[in-house]
Amino acid sequence: MRYWINNKIPDAPFYAVIFISEKSVDLDGYKEMDELTINLAKQQEGFLGFESAGNNNEGIFISYWKSLEAIDNWRKNSIHVTAKKIGKEKWYKRYVSQISKVEMSYEFNQME
Amino acid sequence: MRYWINNKIPDAPFYAVIFISEKSVDLDGYKEMDELTINLAKQQEGFLGFESAGNNNEGIFISYWKSLEAIDNWRKNSIHVTAKKIGKEKWYKRYVSQISKVEMSYEFNQME
Repeated sequence: MRYWINNKIPDAPFYAVIFISEKSVDLDGYKEMDELTINLAKQQEGFLGFESAGNNNEGIFISYWKSLEAIDNWRKNSIHVTAKKIGKEKWYKRYVSQISKVEMSYEFNQME
Repeated sequence: MRYWINNKIPDAPFYAVIFISEKSVDLDGYKEMDELTINLAKQQEGFLGFESAGNNNEGIFISYWKSLEAIDNWRKNSIHVTAKKIGKEKWYKRYVSQISKVEMSYEFNQME
């Protein structure tokens, strides 16, 4: 899945929060929280878009941001903090969270 | 799927090549080339590991590298160049390729 503000990947540089996860057996409440946090992220100042892929066992979710400040504000959002807390206790067997600066971005689209 | 040299994510900073893809209908030869390029990447100087997730339609593959120089050498590898050429012509409807510098990396593992 993917979503970009104005349907367009902006020119680099910008920032990416890479979230890699392996899920647990107990996914009670996961789907609802996932939708809620994605909808909330979209409303944050400095949010640019996201790309995701995965299946029921593992997934990668990359959110893109204008600045480190925007990421820091999102990191402190109370719903997001709650989601991470439950995620650690219940939904995720393992996750990796990385903040990176995208220095080059290229898109190939057969349709264009 | 994931693979890390010495089974360990190194401390940041390091570099990530993010490859997001949506596949075409014709996947003839794709699986063989995928295995070949991953095995080749593992042998490159400066390769640190990879994380991937996806299904038959879309996927995210992130390879991690010690330096931009290592990425540049890999970019020029002839098998890799061939894979990208066929990928563009045949296997991928869309892809996004991004080079980023990972400034923060955190791993949570319920088993540890």
